[in-house]
Amino acid sequence: MKLATIRTAAGTAAVRVDQHDAVELGAPDVGTFLADPGWRDRAATADGPRHPLSSLEYATLVPKPEKVFCVGLNYRTHILEMGRELPEYPTLFAKFARALVGASDPIVAPAGSPKVDWEAELGVVIGTQVRHATPEQAAAAIAGYTVVNDITARDFQNRTVEWLQGKTFERSTPVGPWLVTDTVPGEISCEVDGDVVQKADTSDLVFSPAELIAYISQIITLVPGDLIATGTPGGVGHARKPPRYLAAGSTVVTRVEGVGELRNVVVRED
Amino acid sequence: MKLATIRTAAGTAAVRVDQHDAVELGAPDVGTFLADPGWRDRAATADGPRHPLSSLEYATLVPKPEKVFCVGLNYRTHILEMGRELPEYPTLFAKFARALVGASDPIVAPAGSPKVDWEAELGVVIGTQVRHATPEQAAAAIAGYTVVNDITARDFQNRTVEWLQGKTFERSTPVGPWLVTDTVPGEISCEVDGDVVQKADTSDLVFSPAELIAYISQIITLVPGDLIATGTPGGVGHARKPPRYLAAGSTVVTRVEGVGELRNVVVRED
Repeated sequence: MKLATIRTAAGTAAVRVDQHDAVELGAPDVGTFLADPGWRDRAATADGPRHPLSSLEYATLVPKPEKVFCVGLNYRTHILEMGRELPEYPTLFAKFARALVGASDPIVAPAGSPKVDWEAELGVVIGTQVRHATPEQAAAAIAGYTVVNDITARDFQNRTVEWLQGKTFERSTPVGPWLVTDTVPGEISCEVDGDVVQKADTSDLVFSPAELIAYISQIITLVPGDLIATGTPGGVGHARKPPRYLAAGSTVVTRVEGVGELRNVVVRED
Repeated sequence: MKLATIRTAAGTAAVRVDQHDAVELGAPDVGTFLADPGWRDRAATADGPRHPLSSLEYATLVPKPEKVFCVGLNYRTHILEMGRELPEYPTLFAKFARALVGASDPIVAPAGSPKVDWEAELGVVIGTQVRHATPEQAAAAIAGYTVVNDITARDFQNRTVEWLQGKTFERSTPVGPWLVTDTVPGEISCEVDGDVVQKADTSDLVFSPAELIAYISQIITLVPGDLIATGTPGGVGHARKPPRYLAAGSTVVTRVEGVGELRNVVVRED
């Protein structure tokens, strides 16, 4: 089952995306929809207004998540190839909701940064409130998977030891197009202007989605609609020799096999 | 003028705190109240139900801020005494709303951390939406000042390079008791069980409140109710020899002259 937030003439709407059309679920967005504990049954049996697939315009999946956690350094192969040891704990940082955009929206590259980079990531959306979750509870708290590109202004990221300021530029981070409730995510990739710049397998994560949820939930309650961006594999532009960054007009395609695809064009902030 | 969020039998309420009593402002909390652009006039002329000061129970000042930005390494004297250079850019990290508690609430020390530490800070609350603010716009966007103790689990903070996980434990961070709209903040101090452990002057900040707002607003839009914790001076427990941490029953008093005082007792999470 695929759930999305779409833009309609009357505002955004949560929908179930079927093979030929999308059915409205009676909530303004996926975050609000997931807050109803009966969301799985409601989604499966929804019979609201329908929209042809070709007409859909995707908003960011959860427009106002209570929390967005991001993870650094989480692909085993990439960590080892850089000569580092596998981490004992996940590296966690935040992103604010205003950074998020939809699956086909422009990525806004900030005026002050010439070093805007890509980071294809598997996104996990929380579907059940959890605190101090056991591994089983953590796995059961996953509503589904989505696709994230954790667009990063490398110059701002590296101005200080804390990455936040390079990670939360307004309207920089595409998330969507939907969450898939019943899938095993496969290959993850990023293409920039047709060049495959990242390719890895999401099974190579050091900390799996359920392990991340269990870990984070010992710190703070995770609630429906919370988003975890699980980290990016090797191949980012900043690490290339010479470095490569995104420019106005760059097309970024971010894919997770079994989940979906983002396709975004970079625009430069005025 | 002092504005606060108090707990009443009917839920929380935004109030103006006067010399003898507090007047309800017709909004459920200070964050919601500040979202009305006419909040200054409304606050000055409010004439709602009144509560005697002795009856007031303070909720956290803004229960659901869209964003909480925290600043590291921002007291000049402390940076220089540690032999470091003054930073060119502010170090920014985040905290999530669920970490916040009221001015007299328990500080919940997480079960998994024996290294819970204090960080007295001047808090700044945004009163006007700003993006790419000039210095003048940034100064005008300040609704007022409050008191924050950026309670930190040092072990979690230092598990990885990113501090977030040590900074956002649920119900760890007192903010309040009110915001003061017309004051010049003075001395900042922290007392633990009667010992003065931090004392500095808020005029010693490397990046002033207005400079922080101008800087952050080039990254993302700041909106009414957003909170900035401006950093802590020297004297934290982790840097002492031997280190000193908070324990169950510790009383933490956090003061900013001209603003207010937090008084919190540490409880250990079950």
